[in-house]
Amino acid sequence: MRINGKPYHTIWLSDETPSSVQIIDQRKLPFVFEILNLKTPEDCFHAIRDMAVRGAPLIGITAAYGMYLALFCYNGKNIENQLYEIASHLKSSRPTAVNLAYAVDVMLEFLLKNRQASNLKKLTLKKVEELKFREIEFSEKIGEFGLEIIEKIYQKKQQPVNILTHCNAGWLACIDWGTATAPIYKAHRKGIPVHVWVDETRPRNQGARLTAFELGQEAVPHTVIADNTGGHLMQHKMVDLVIVGSDRTTVTGDVANKIGTYLKALAAKDNGIPFYVALPSSTFDWQMEDGIAEIPIEERNADEVAKIEGWGNNSIQQVQLIPENSRAVNYSFDVTPARLVTGLITERGISKANRESITALFPERGNNIAQRANNK
Amino acid sequence: MRINGKPYHTIWLSDETPSSVQIIDQRKLPFVFEILNLKTPEDCFHAIRDMAVRGAPLIGITAAYGMYLALFCYNGKNIENQLYEIASHLKSSRPTAVNLAYAVDVMLEFLLKNRQASNLKKLTLKKVEELKFREIEFSEKIGEFGLEIIEKIYQKKQQPVNILTHCNAGWLACIDWGTATAPIYKAHRKGIPVHVWVDETRPRNQGARLTAFELGQEAVPHTVIADNTGGHLMQHKMVDLVIVGSDRTTVTGDVANKIGTYLKALAAKDNGIPFYVALPSSTFDWQMEDGIAEIPIEERNADEVAKIEGWGNNSIQQVQLIPENSRAVNYSFDVTPARLVTGLITERGISKANRESITALFPERGNNIAQRANNK
Repeated sequence: MRINGKPYHTIWLSDETPSSVQIIDQRKLPFVFEILNLKTPEDCFHAIRDMAVRGAPLIGITAAYGMYLALFCYNGKNIENQLYEIASHLKSSRPTAVNLAYAVDVMLEFLLKNRQASNLKKLTLKKVEELKFREIEFSEKIGEFGLEIIEKIYQKKQQPVNILTHCNAGWLACIDWGTATAPIYKAHRKGIPVHVWVDETRPRNQGARLTAFELGQEAVPHTVIADNTGGHLMQHKMVDLVIVGSDRTTVTGDVANKIGTYLKALAAKDNGIPFYVALPSSTFDWQMEDGIAEIPIEERNADEVAKIEGWGNNSIQQVQLIPENSRAVNYSFDVTPARLVTGLITERGISKANRESITALFPERGNNIAQRANNK
Repeated sequence: MRINGKPYHTIWLSDETPSSVQIIDQRKLPFVFEILNLKTPEDCFHAIRDMAVRGAPLIGITAAYGMYLALFCYNGKNIENQLYEIASHLKSSRPTAVNLAYAVDVMLEFLLKNRQASNLKKLTLKKVEELKFREIEFSEKIGEFGLEIIEKIYQKKQQPVNILTHCNAGWLACIDWGTATAPIYKAHRKGIPVHVWVDETRPRNQGARLTAFELGQEAVPHTVIADNTGGHLMQHKMVDLVIVGSDRTTVTGDVANKIGTYLKALAAKDNGIPFYVALPSSTFDWQMEDGIAEIPIEERNADEVAKIEGWGNNSIQQVQLIPENSRAVNYSFDVTPARLVTGLITERGISKANRESITALFPERGNNIAQRANNK
């Protein structure tokens, strides 16, 4: 997608040298647009841990590039040991993202298998780019399936389609297109008029900062709202559709996503508004049955609630929001039960939020589960 | 209630001179505790308009003191005309609060009737204090009725009672005790262990700033949360009871309150958690039948969403939260339909959120309505 009119991915190999990877420093958006160079696996580790990049797909690809950059940092020791060490270090950069471990393991296996090849760097780069373009392909597929939903609403309404989204499940969390935003971008490019209600998404304000930024750069009409506002808008028919992303979705259709998603799902249900979750199949947890009971909810630093970051005096500033002696807590995610979810938009199509429908789209996974059930 | 260990009301006559009234500058809380002197009706007008004081009961009493201070500013013209002018000016300070117009009208009528009395200042002060102490009495009554609800939960649970509240319906919005907070203070003073989840309440953060401050000053255990968090807490049985205030409640039990209240009511319903609204009877709108269709929702300055105020570099600072070219909107209230409300805690007792139950508590109003219906 575009920034200042120029198309970008969230991560790319430097034009100037094959030993450097570039990313957008997302900690500074939307106030400052700055590109960072990652030259070592350690640089990739820090970019992930310190949240210069975020979003499961992007984290995974950043770590995959980290494994590639390891080839430029060969320290003369046993290469196999070195690769194992770097892989394990990269995996420790963020605790929860499944894509991270998956991408690192794929790259480690590939490197160990091909470590004698004379053109190893070139081969490895090709492998990373394969992973990267698979992510883009999945986002585009999600976009195309989701587009059909928006198109149908538009055909009926013949007025701009109002879509509410929470947090940033945008191209900045992926490589391109995004998950929840992919159908929006596809619709916008097709000339279907859309308007997006952007939940600011306290405490980290990924909606106000990132989603508003990327929609603005693509000239998609949008309005930022306090997280408290969605229910009122829905009561007054100012929302036609909700699309959010997911951090983990059970095989039974329970959806873990940024804290506050559940409240919007309740309001959508109460007002008869379709509530869709856009996710690549890598986000499914094929083992888990009960999202509310089983999905662990990360508790992050309370300072994210007690303080906030914004732009003041020509720099990014942090201000304190609560009394000095008050306590705050910061749960990062909540779980929206399947009964509130209209459908799941995946790279293979749209399924209902239940086991039958999900495993009908991914029968290879359904078989696994059936087998495990039989073995019990 | 106490600040720095000393008991305060939100407004009081100066100890030093009978021609000065003092208030706490609520715009600076919790960062700076500052007392302002109001010496003229114009000072009272500005205190209300510029939100140094807020909350319907406090606004009303501030305006009543404004009418009293008018007696110290007699400009030699026709006193009757002067009083009418000042009354009309005071009423224009905030557009929505019904208590404001009510208090000014009561004082105007009183002043016109008694304008020949030799001890008019003394009599007028007595009248203002009558209004003020009636507000305190109503808050205390609400506190006592609400206390019974908390007590019952505690008797069953024998663990601290977790109460979630939204915005500030605290003593800072009233004269003392508050509405939603009154039962909490009564329980705390009775030794019943309570813990309050304080919604920060974007965009103006009255929860994070005012509710957290006043609970902290009374040593009531509390935790500030992002507005997104309540649903997750309720799913995990970390909330026993929700109590909020109201800006207007229809005779049918629909509750207008700070934006976001409706989302918490939905979550409470979904998780079987009692959801109570604490309000003095002056908050009822005896004419209105359908809250969602009829209650006008104030749209405030979008800058309250686009920016935020906090403490940084030893002063109150404002920082920008959204991209320069993004739009924001700011709806101040939403309406929680009666079907989501467990009960209304008033100064006469607790009623269900329906016409029969409300008018059973306030039969004099019920009669009015019945009469009007017969006259149609």
